[in-house]
This record gives sequence, structure tokens and C-alpha cells, in this order.
Amino acid sequence: MARSGSGESVLERVVRILEAFTPRSPVLTVGEVARRADLPVATASRLIAELIGHGLLSREEDRRVRIGTRLWELGSRASPTSSLRELALPVLEDLLRVVGHHAQLGVLDGEEVLFVERLSAEHAVINYTRIAARLPLHASSSGLVLLAYGSEILQERILAGTLTRFTPMTITDPGELRRRLADVRRQGFVLCPGFLHVDATGIAVPVRDETGHVAAAVSVIVPNDEQARGYVPVLTAGARQIERRLVSH
Amino acid sequence: MARSGSGESVLERVVRILEAFTPRSPVLTVGEVARRADLPVATASRLIAELIGHGLLSREEDRRVRIGTRLWELGSRASPTSSLRELALPVLEDLLRVVGHHAQLGVLDGEEVLFVERLSAEHAVINYTRIAARLPLHASSSGLVLLAYGSEILQERILAGTLTRFTPMTITDPGELRRRLADVRRQGFVLCPGFLHVDATGIAVPVRDETGHVAAAVSVIVPNDEQARGYVPVLTAGARQIERRLVSH
Repeated sequence: MARSGSGESVLERVVRILEAFTPRSPVLTVGEVARRADLPVATASRLIAELIGHGLLSREEDRRVRIGTRLWELGSRASPTSSLRELALPVLEDLLRVVGHHAQLGVLDGEEVLFVERLSAEHAVINYTRIAARLPLHASSSGLVLLAYGSEILQERILAGTLTRFTPMTITDPGELRRRLADVRRQGFVLCPGFLHVDATGIAVPVRDETGHVAAAVSVIVPNDEQARGYVPVLTAGARQIERRLVSH
Repeated sequence: MARSGSGESVLERVVRILEAFTPRSPVLTVGEVARRADLPVATASRLIAELIGHGLLSREEDRRVRIGTRLWELGSRASPTSSLRELALPVLEDLLRVVGHHAQLGVLDGEEVLFVERLSAEHAVINYTRIAARLPLHASSSGLVLLAYGSEILQERILAGTLTRFTPMTITDPGELRRRLADVRRQGFVLCPGFLHVDATGIAVPVRDETGHVAAAVSVIVPNDEQARGYVPVLTAGARQIERRLVSH
């Protein structure tokens, strides 16, 4: 691919521009995009104009820029997770109705969990972005499930890396994390009281595909109290339901 | 942006490669991508490798290629329609429960309606792709609503263009279409018995944003029988509910 003087490809720059937009800053000026993407304003401006021409970005009336509907469409219509998301949605709805707060579906992406669906009650314990959010594997219930059933290479990499502390309850000791992963594999679920936020407990269970491979984690976020453990059976039943829908799909 | 000998930019080629993937053909060989994108295999292969490096495409175990999770994430996390979708979802769920079959949310994109959410009952009247599908404006209930409240420029362009016939019921006469658009604006809903498929009736109503501008259409697909008209009130109530959620958001 054509490269600039700095040896960087056009595509690298385009990806950096797209990455400048986040749920908290969905609309940016050209100058803001250039700064976030670490590009000269003239370069950013030229690429943004071409991205707008293809509908991948769009311009607001105030000249600021945002992600275009076309980019969402290209990413969604043939997405590898769309059929999983679609099959899981009715189950997540039922879980939300029974458990309240948040019900979510996460997949392993790189060294993080990526939430491909998240349903939230109006007055949930904590306020979250609905979809396309990421969390570290060691600190979230979905992440611990995906890590427990992930490859040994991934486990060793995470155990050898930095285990960021979010609350006093976050597991930051590699030995303790290793024991916890073995617990997850033995019990088939994980309960994370206060790991990411002191007021919330995450509970997650694995979802297996037709081949028995863990394809996703289904999880709920509930208040951090003694009732949390009581939600494990309904969550496990929900995961089985998603698995049945995957097989008969 | 850097251009090839044919005067085409890298981004143009990348967009054509991404467009090769559809809900019906989400996984393709490099040769299939090259053919669909009208690119030499060597060029397609090089761009595909770079797209895979950025996670925008991913390679299956059998070496075939599909849309990458990263592209879905970039398109979703700051999408202009994500908050509308999120606010509408509980209302669509209720509509699906009451009406059965399909409940969907569409926005105007270019000269088509793009469905940003579609919920379907297990045994719905017709089988549809869930999201990111498109339909022509003159032949779908959502499209007629979005066209009726769209700009005059858009209306004249559609009226002057080809009005493709899908069934004997599809409106293909510009004069009749013009009258129908006036009806929609007067009545605040549209009923399309058999326009796209003889067995199905689409019913759509407008959803207005805080400024009174029609931002979307909410619609249901039901069997083409005498009961269809009875769903207009619940659909209208659903649209008001989405509007209230938009305002208090």
C-alpha cells in the first residue's frame, strides 16, 4: 500500500482517524481528530474529506465530524458476532427482566473482552455504555470466564503482564488469578464482587459453540450484596438457552 | 490520498473490498473478494493482508476472509444511530410482543431506508436479515414515511426515478406515489399491504427528534390481512414513547 514519507500507510492513518471517535467523544472538529490521530491538520483534513466522500465519516451542520452510517453498516452487516448477538438477544432480555440492572454478551478480542451486546435497566446499579465497550480480562467477570477457557499462551501473557487495580477487591496477584481461573473451570461460573466498582458484582458463565469451544461469556451486573450469588442458576440456564439456539441455528 | 495508476485511491479500493462482504456471503476467499471488488488478485491480496493486520478483516482457519470484529467496533461505538437504537430497543421489544412478526427502526440513508434495528419473532410471516438491511423508499412502509417527511429535492428525485415493481401492489406510478406521500403527512402513518411481498403488510409511523424533525420510522411487518390496520394505534403509541425517551435522554 502507498506509504507517506514517514513510512506509514494510508490505511494506518485512516485507522487512527477512525479510532479518534469514541462513545464519549462521538463528534469532533478536524483539529481534534488531527491531534488525537497524531497527524498534521492538512493530512487529517484531506483524509477526512475522502472518508466523508465514502460515507465512512459524516459532517454535522456545524462542520464537526462523526462516524458515518456507512461504516456502521459495513461493520454490522457481515459481522462475525452478529448471528451470536442476534441469537442471544431474547435470552439477554429475559435475564434483564429477571435480574434487573445489566445483562451482557462479551467475546474475547485480543487481550480484552469486547461487549457485543449490553442491555441495561433504566435505574441500573452503574451506568455503562451499551455496546462495543471493552474491559480487561483479569478485572471483569466476562473476562475471567473468557481467560479461564482461553489458550495457555493468552493466560501466561496476562499472568505475566500488569494486573491493573480498579478497587481493593480487584485480583492483582498472579498466583491468586491462576487459582481463580482453575475455580472458574471447575465451577463453570465466576462471581466478582466489587472487582471493577465497589458497588457492583459481575457474574459470568461461558457460552459454548457447536464444537464445545467457549465462544462468549454471558454476564449480569447486580448490586454488590449477599443476593448476587443467587443469580448464578438463572444465568447458567440462560447460557444453555443461547447454546441450544446456536446449535439449532 | 495516494492513487494507483488507474487514478483510484487506496481508500476507494478498501471500500470496495469491504463492500464485497454481505449478510449472505460473510466469508469469502481472496479470489472471490478480488472478483467482487473488481481488483487484480495481487492487489486485493495485498490490501486484504493489511486490513487483517489492522483487525478490519480477519482470516478463518480455512484461509477465507471475513469482516473483523475491530471494524464492527469502530462503526458501532460512536455510531450516529446507536443512541436512537438503544432508546428505541425496549419499545421495539414491546411492539414485537404485542404485534408478533417483525418490529424495526429505519433511518433515511441516501435514497434508501437503512434498518438500524430489527427484532423478529421466531415464526414471523417473512424471514428477514435482522439489521443493516436496506430497502427502497417507494416500496417499503418505513421508506414511504421517511420520504413523506423528507426534503422536496429527495421527493422529486425519487418521483423522477425508476419505481421498481416488487408485487402487483407496489406503487410504481409517480402521481399515485405523490398522493400517497400527502396521505402519510395528513394521517401520520402508512399501511403497505403486499407492496414488497404479497403475504406481508408493512405499517410505519414517523419518530421525531427534539426539534420536530423526523429522525426515523418505526414499523412492523404483519400478515397481509384485515387485522393489519388494527396495529396502527399501538405503533403510534410506540413512536411517541421513543420520542419521549429521546427528549429526556
